[in-house]
Amino acid sequence: MKWQDVGEMRCPIARSLSVIGDRWTVLILRNAFMRMRRFDDFRSSLGLPKHILSQRLKKLVDAEVMTREPYQTSPVRYEYRLTEKGRELHPVILSLSGWGDKWMDGGQGNVLFYTHTDCGHRFTPVMACSGCGGHVHARNVMVSPGPGLVAPAAGTRG
Amino acid sequence: MKWQDVGEMRCPIARSLSVIGDRWTVLILRNAFMRMRRFDDFRSSLGLPKHILSQRLKKLVDAEVMTREPYQTSPVRYEYRLTEKGRELHPVILSLSGWGDKWMDGGQGNVLFYTHTDCGHRFTPVMACSGCGGHVHARNVMVSPGPGLVAPAAGTRG
Repeated sequence: MKWQDVGEMRCPIARSLSVIGDRWTVLILRNAFMRMRRFDDFRSSLGLPKHILSQRLKKLVDAEVMTREPYQTSPVRYEYRLTEKGRELHPVILSLSGWGDKWMDGGQGNVLFYTHTDCGHRFTPVMACSGCGGHVHARNVMVSPGPGLVAPAAGTRG
Repeated sequence: MKWQDVGEMRCPIARSLSVIGDRWTVLILRNAFMRMRRFDDFRSSLGLPKHILSQRLKKLVDAEVMTREPYQTSPVRYEYRLTEKGRELHPVILSLSGWGDKWMDGGQGNVLFYTHTDCGHRFTPVMACSGCGGHVHARNVMVSPGPGLVAPAAGTRG
């Protein structure tokens, strides 16, 4: 299977990866969640060549994860902001961060601490059930097919 | 910056991506969470060339995300199982799945439904605060530096 075909798989994980499966893209999103918006700031933070950063940002805009709006003219300069669709990637970024800090810290302790501003606790991100609020983990989840699994394929391919 | 250097960044997200930043690796993990264990099953599920799959699995074993154990001799065949470190990637996989099902469903509805076996609810994965259990999202988290950010760099680089 070629990677291009994976976005068409009837798997929500594969579909997500077709948008954010690139590592630089995830780091762009990380910076966006830290309120970074400007092309030159992304560029200097990530040390990416201009054309690579442009291509990644364009893909995020095309996927409606970010918007691109001018913030000055002559010369025109753009800023990139997360849409609602983009902001809802927060659990992906936070769970990558929590895992990295727990398991990849090289024995030096957390790089980052997170505080939940609603309650003031310094917290570890945990995945919860929207029904009961209880902890969800690898061993208490059952998966079943939804309507999107049995619907006819969208569009036709030549 | 080259990608190889990103794993050494003092960022827990970059460190996580140095292990699971490859898209095929995420799909291998997805299958492992669905109880898949054998090389040939991964291969036929993902349609990957043998050497690519071997290389991805070896990297996961080297990173202690999976173990590799023989399950038969003559010829010897191996199975791959998630370690505790690997099982704790569940929130990453679940959050990718939840986002893909909500935002990338092509109007056809959920591909998958998740049931929390502790309570029986069909649920949407949400990120919660380990302190109060409340919902954590992009706008109620504050980040601050931990000890790993200010510790001396591990090892030396020439």
